[in-house]
Amino acid sequence: MARIGIIGSAGRMGQALADAIAAAGQELAGGVDKGGDVAALAAQSDVLVDFSAPAALEGNLDAAMAAGVPIVVGTTGLEERHHWLCDNAAGQIAVLQTGNTSLGVTLLAHLVREAASRLGEDWDIEISETHHRMKVDAPSGTALLLGEAAAAGRGLDLAGHSARGRDGVTGARQSGEIGFASLRGGSVAGDHTVHFLGADERISLTHLAENRTIFAKGAVRAAQWLVGKPAGRYRMGEVLDL
Amino acid sequence: MARIGIIGSAGRMGQALADAIAAAGQELAGGVDKGGDVAALAAQSDVLVDFSAPAALEGNLDAAMAAGVPIVVGTTGLEERHHWLCDNAAGQIAVLQTGNTSLGVTLLAHLVREAASRLGEDWDIEISETHHRMKVDAPSGTALLLGEAAAAGRGLDLAGHSARGRDGVTGARQSGEIGFASLRGGSVAGDHTVHFLGADERISLTHLAENRTIFAKGAVRAAQWLVGKPAGRYRMGEVLDL
Amino acid sequence: MARIGIIGSAGRMGQALADAIAAAGQELAGGVDKGGDVAALAAQSDVLVDFSAPAALEGNLDAAMAAGVPIVVGTTGLEERHHWLCDNAAGQIAVLQTGNTSLGVTLLAHLVREAASRLGEDWDIEISETHHRMKVDAPSGTALLLGEAAAAGRGLDLAGHSARGRDGVTGARQSGEIGFASLRGGSVAGDHTVHFLGADERISLTHLAENRTIFAKGAVRAAQWLVGKPAGRYRMGEVLDL
Amino acid sequence: MARIGIIGSAGRMGQALADAIAAAGQELAGGVDKGGDVAALAAQSDVLVDFSAPAALEGNLDAAMAAGVPIVVGTTGLEERHHWLCDNAAGQIAVLQTGNTSLGVTLLAHLVREAASRLGEDWDIEISETHHRMKVDAPSGTALLLGEAAAAGRGLDLAGHSARGRDGVTGARQSGEIGFASLRGGSVAGDHTVHFLGADERISLTHLAENRTIFAKGAVRAAQWLVGKPAGRYRMGEVLDL
Repeated sequence: MARIGIIGSAGRMGQALADAIAAAGQELAGGVDKGGDVAALAAQSDVLVDFSAPAALEGNLDAAMAAGVPIVVGTTGLEERHHWLCDNAAGQIAVLQTGNTSLGVTLLAHLVREAASRLGEDWDIEISETHHRMKVDAPSGTALLLGEAAAAGRGLDLAGHSARGRDGVTGARQSGEIGFASLRGGSVAGDHTVHFLGADERISLTHLAENRTIFAKGAVRAAQWLVGKPAGRYRMGEVLDL
Repeated sequence: MARIGIIGSAGRMGQALADAIAAAGQELAGGVDKGGDVAALAAQSDVLVDFSAPAALEGNLDAAMAAGVPIVVGTTGLEERHHWLCDNAAGQIAVLQTGNTSLGVTLLAHLVREAASRLGEDWDIEISETHHRMKVDAPSGTALLLGEAAAAGRGLDLAGHSARGRDGVTGARQSGEIGFASLRGGSVAGDHTVHFLGADERISLTHLAENRTIFAKGAVRAAQWLVGKPAGRYRMGEVLDL
Repeated sequence: MARIGIIGSAGRMGQALADAIAAAGQELAGGVDKGGDVAALAAQSDVLVDFSAPAALEGNLDAAMAAGVPIVVGTTGLEERHHWLCDNAAGQIAVLQTGNTSLGVTLLAHLVREAASRLGEDWDIEISETHHRMKVDAPSGTALLLGEAAAAGRGLDLAGHSARGRDGVTGARQSGEIGFASLRGGSVAGDHTVHFLGADERISLTHLAENRTIFAKGAVRAAQWLVGKPAGRYRMGEVLDL
Repeated sequence: MARIGIIGSAGRMGQALADAIAAAGQELAGGVDKGGDVAALAAQSDVLVDFSAPAALEGNLDAAMAAGVPIVVGTTGLEERHHWLCDNAAGQIAVLQTGNTSLGVTLLAHLVREAASRLGEDWDIEISETHHRMKVDAPSGTALLLGEAAAAGRGLDLAGHSARGRDGVTGARQSGEIGFASLRGGSVAGDHTVHFLGADERISLTHLAENRTIFAKGAVRAAQWLVGKPAGRYRMGEVLDL
């Protein structure tokens, strides 16, 4: 039984994590929030789960390194320097950072990469996603994660091949581009579809989250998996042996 | 049996119209293309079907008025002044102009208007569409037609409430807005979905065109319906008694 | 503010109703369960909501009649004699019985009837539904309710035109039949799609329940609407003015 | 450039094959139909493609063996003894037999097997399909092919775990079963979806055929790939390196 410490324990995700830890038969080592004592939490945890904020990441990684405790980073909105911080910490402890902790999305990304690499370039790739009306950015981080998987399968660089926010006279589709389209409304927890559009046939790969408990459940499974792993940077896919 | 004349008889749509006229047991009065004699065609037709180009519309309407023959206008890309031309011609002859001649899309627009008017404002409306890789504009004319239907059901002006091409930090969804998202790829003849996203439940209304013959079939049905109608401007919905 | 009494207050639906009553700013008059005193509950309620069991229906209707209180019957699995009981009670009090209290499904049924009546008989009608792995019957009551709406739109009797559980060598589809297909698995709260399949085009009308709160919310809205209505049997559609 | 001979050259599929051979820049060696001289055709072909009928299979394989020419068998409705015939012929020539020659379906089956093997047994598997109103059997051969892929991924025997044609009081879903549901109507060329339904999340993998040309195109690609292969029995997946 792993003792799991939650960084970012207030709010909806913190509560969901506590529930998921109990459901998985693990032990909640405790939780901290903004201004809380992460070092003390790390000292009594076998693994940390961080769903706080990008600004807190550096301090959280420092506390994990000081205690020699692995950490799952599920915080979204990370920038390039946050990835450097994760890489740096991975020299001393096990770090699993991911834009989506759901096991279903993790598998979907794997299938998308496989499909993109197998289907020829005459199959166009498009990604659509739907989220609740309060979401403030588009495309979703998960849509971009799926786009990265598709681009990797094609051997392309996503940044140079994204078509986002199509509107007006766009001209015909560019060969190799990966399109993104975002819908917003209601209470949708998160739908994502990757479309492969070929000549006279189509394949679509979809994930639908019925609610947000799956993110907590996947984070807890990742945390259990991370306990005892050597220092290094890990991917969510490895939790599923992908 | 109606004698139906085709303006824009070359190319894929012209051929599809000729096939649909035969399938419906009607008579093909003839066809003209760029530079052809529309007046002569009008003189031997009971009704004209125009799928040529916006620039040709004025001449085509003049020929129809001179011959006293009704006309179905399915040309896309019309601007405001083309609508004035249609209104003007409708003083003398029956004119049915539409952005989509498919009977299925026509019914869908009717259902969208009904749903939008019945569901409260706490149901957000989003419209997604997919078309083949050669399409040069977004959203599709049909998506906009469906948006007009939704806006009419809500008693809103579409122009002031459209959210097109969401990308980046958009902020939370504005109440009352109607979102549009466009996917492009492969050989998709045209998928359209209007999403009504409420609290904990969703309704979606979808039309899928398997190929482009439906536009020709609907245009021929509209043409048959238009023969003998008094001067005036007609809508596609009236063909289905909507 | 209406005082709403719950018959069948234990279990998940009873709790959801209590939450929905609070969320709607109404008053929970109390709740009873198997063996509880429905007459006493009726005496202190402005309206009753019954989600108990078919076997309890007769007693519940008697108590409502004795107290002169309207009643919403959302119990599923009713047989013909239960409908007679509702009809009989409707001679004295307002009775709203429905197989699905969701506002979205109620609207969907209205759209289905409209579409079925407008589209010619060359558009085939099929209904598919998905529910969680614990559901013991197929098709769902809601699928049948949508089938009734489609049959009504076509002027057909559903019982004589249902195609259920297709398997093996079925022969070509019979004209006019309404097909049903059921999927089971996971934790799906309830997806329903009515497909209209025509020559070269298709329309599909879908409802997706994200969770079961919508049934409670709709039942409370129906209860509020029913207060003060004269004796008679009412439909869920009337709550939405359909 | 391969010389491709068509067995079953009359009818829609034969014509589609001839078109696909031309589109792929290959040579049509000729075609035969019921009663035609397959031996003569084999003698002038580099590879045969058989879309005739099960009853003709034995003679076709004999002709291919006599000429030492590889053969793609796309005939549907094969029974166990036809598979023995293929196995036997595969001792002398290259034989590729498949229930679906579409490249998209072939990839989909590969993804389904992968997903089924990666997702735990708490993800339920269901397969739905839609075909035109003239189709006489259910589920489709392709749905069964996808079911085989899912069962293989799970290490199960499909025959012992199929749930077909759910109707009436079925009881709760059995763990490990693979459900099938069939819709029929309109002119649908073929939609197939494999649903993985988990706790609070779902993955669905879909293939949609816009028309039947994809089967001819895939058969021609398989034929080109088969030329020069040693004797043996091959799978469609090998054409895509799956």
